Amino acid sequence: MERRRFLKGLGAVALGSTVVSRATKAYSAEKRFVWRMVTSWPPNFPILQTGAERLARRVGELSGGRLTIQVYAGKELVPPLGVFDAVSQGTVECGHSASYYWAGKSPAFQWFTSIPFGLNAQGMNTWLYQGNGLKLWQELYAQFNIVPRPAGNTGVQMGGWFNREINSLEDFKGLKMRMPGLGGKVLKKVGGTVVLLPAGEIYTSLERGVIDATEWVGPAHDLRMGFQKVAKYYYGPGWHEPGSVLEFIVNKKAHDALPDDLKAVLDVACAELNVQMLTEFEHENAKGLQTLMKEHKVKIKHFPPEVLKGLRKVAKETIEEEASKDKMAQKIHRDFSAFQEKMRPWANISEREYYNFII
Amino acid sequence: MERRRFLKGLGAVALGSTVVSRATKAYSAEKRFVWRMVTSWPPNFPILQTGAERLARRVGELSGGRLTIQVYAGKELVPPLGVFDAVSQGTVECGHSASYYWAGKSPAFQWFTSIPFGLNAQGMNTWLYQGNGLKLWQELYAQFNIVPRPAGNTGVQMGGWFNREINSLEDFKGLKMRMPGLGGKVLKKVGGTVVLLPAGEIYTSLERGVIDATEWVGPAHDLRMGFQKVAKYYYGPGWHEPGSVLEFIVNKKAHDALPDDLKAVLDVACAELNVQMLTEFEHENAKGLQTLMKEHKVKIKHFPPEVLKGLRKVAKETIEEEASKDKMAQKIHRDFSAFQEKMRPWANISEREYYNFII
Repeated sequence: MERRRFLKGLGAVALGSTVVSRATKAYSAEKRFVWRMVTSWPPNFPILQTGAERLARRVGELSGGRLTIQVYAGKELVPPLGVFDAVSQGTVECGHSASYYWAGKSPAFQWFTSIPFGLNAQGMNTWLYQGNGLKLWQELYAQFNIVPRPAGNTGVQMGGWFNREINSLEDFKGLKMRMPGLGGKVLKKVGGTVVLLPAGEIYTSLERGVIDATEWVGPAHDLRMGFQKVAKYYYGPGWHEPGSVLEFIVNKKAHDALPDDLKAVLDVACAELNVQMLTEFEHENAKGLQTLMKEHKVKIKHFPPEVLKGLRKVAKETIEEEASKDKMAQKIHRDFSAFQEKMRPWANISEREYYNFII
Repeated sequence: MERRRFLKGLGAVALGSTVVSRATKAYSAEKRFVWRMVTSWPPNFPILQTGAERLARRVGELSGGRLTIQVYAGKELVPPLGVFDAVSQGTVECGHSASYYWAGKSPAFQWFTSIPFGLNAQGMNTWLYQGNGLKLWQELYAQFNIVPRPAGNTGVQMGGWFNREINSLEDFKGLKMRMPGLGGKVLKKVGGTVVLLPAGEIYTSLERGVIDATEWVGPAHDLRMGFQKVAKYYYGPGWHEPGSVLEFIVNKKAHDALPDDLKAVLDVACAELNVQMLTEFEHENAKGLQTLMKEHKVKIKHFPPEVLKGLRKVAKETIEEEASKDKMAQKIHRDFSAFQEKMRPWANISEREYYNFII
């Protein structure tokens, strides 16, 4: 109060004069931390690995070098899918990955990345920051000594590359498609055959007819995989992943050891990466799509509305089944679904109208 | 390089052991800064003023108290629309406001908040962070000794409260509406009468028939104004403001005086506020809309597609005219329009499909 009154009294005093000499209060610069971050991405993998590296640099800048994070891509220190366990066990202090990779531990993990016909990037952020999303995520991860933060989003993904036209739900029957996760479970229910393949084998499998279709990420990454050379149609939207959240995870003991200002540094750096990565995906996907359409003459196809309607119905059943497997999954599913319902009328008169009138 | 090799050598060393004792390098904790922020918002104004205050607190936390920002609401130190000049002249170090309030200086300012039928929040962020948006904004503001940062977004606004049904473009003829800015210019072109009123007089003017309609913000703020008591219909979407950016502006001399880590602190705190404020608007608007529909039985109306099509055509002419008034506005307009065109095919197969299939 006193300082406030004092400042008011300053009136239009010249800038710079408010620089006060060094405070005597002990400052958290006393301690320096050197951390290691492991990721699930290949070295230099665009947007994701480069995003994790940007996060580390930003933390270094913001902390004035008091918290240094060394980043290791997938396989450099631990396997790409060993990130969670490495952070949980304290082998490393932190990691960058996606929660649905850990669905083997519990179906509950899937809701913190993306759910078929679930929330898009804006919706996920709203659930995480304003709803119960982050609280539930923290509750789940606390069981594994991990503190999670949203740290990036892919935006709406693409539906995939097909060598068969999809005009009705019937066309999924007998379709051999590379599609992991919940999307794959939905595909199976409509008569498709799910084929799981490592990234390096997808192209050849599609070329040789071992599979009829594959999903990957979005135009920016798909273009680099060269799928346009071995598939006839490129379908959208990615109903199975409408806005996948990336995670920054910290070992709880390491997190607890930080002073408050460095905890805040991690939080804001993650929030910045969250919005920056989404815009990078948006921009690179828009450019990638143009290249695919103009240079490679790729046929962009929209799943017919009836197909999406059918898939949505089956997805709902699939998700209910997943949720029923585990008490925590059930709790998260209920909160997520109620939140999506609550947001729907507003989305209908705002963003939905926006996208329809501008296109 | 040496440190990296050293760290690799540590292997699975226990957490906490990597805490290194205090470095000898001089640290920027040497100087403390006390700044004042003025805003264009009333005291305690939800989401906007509270957001500006959150930004200030966050900067304090992140800087370990080295940069303290005292926040003054509109009128507390300078008038709400005096923010830009106060920051430009160095009366205060920083401010929180919206660039289109300064359109009197040059039409160019309008593109950094929102343009009728322009980009939504996600699009504005993509233009600002990945396109030329922020560069152009900085170029414009450098002429006024100001460094700008995006620091919040309202999301899609509402079209407004009407006591007359809008079934065709003809229905705007003779309509007396409170609608400032570019939206008002479009309204005038379709035969409406623009009435400018201070916030405190809108309710009574609508009640007494001095005006037939008014726009404000979105359900959360509109509900507080009580317009549901004096207007028959609530129209969406807000075609005139599809995603208004809020700005954090800093006097250049004050900005230059900061060490690099505190400049970075301001950048990330603004990025965090940017994504947080948008989600707060989304969440509060969704709740506000439910209250209006369920408790106040408000009729939510969608502008017919033909009306939006007509308004869009007139808006395009209006914006071209605005851009032609000033060289910088022309430059910004060209970049903005080209960017929006570039993003359109991607938006069409991604977010547009998303909003259509989930509703």
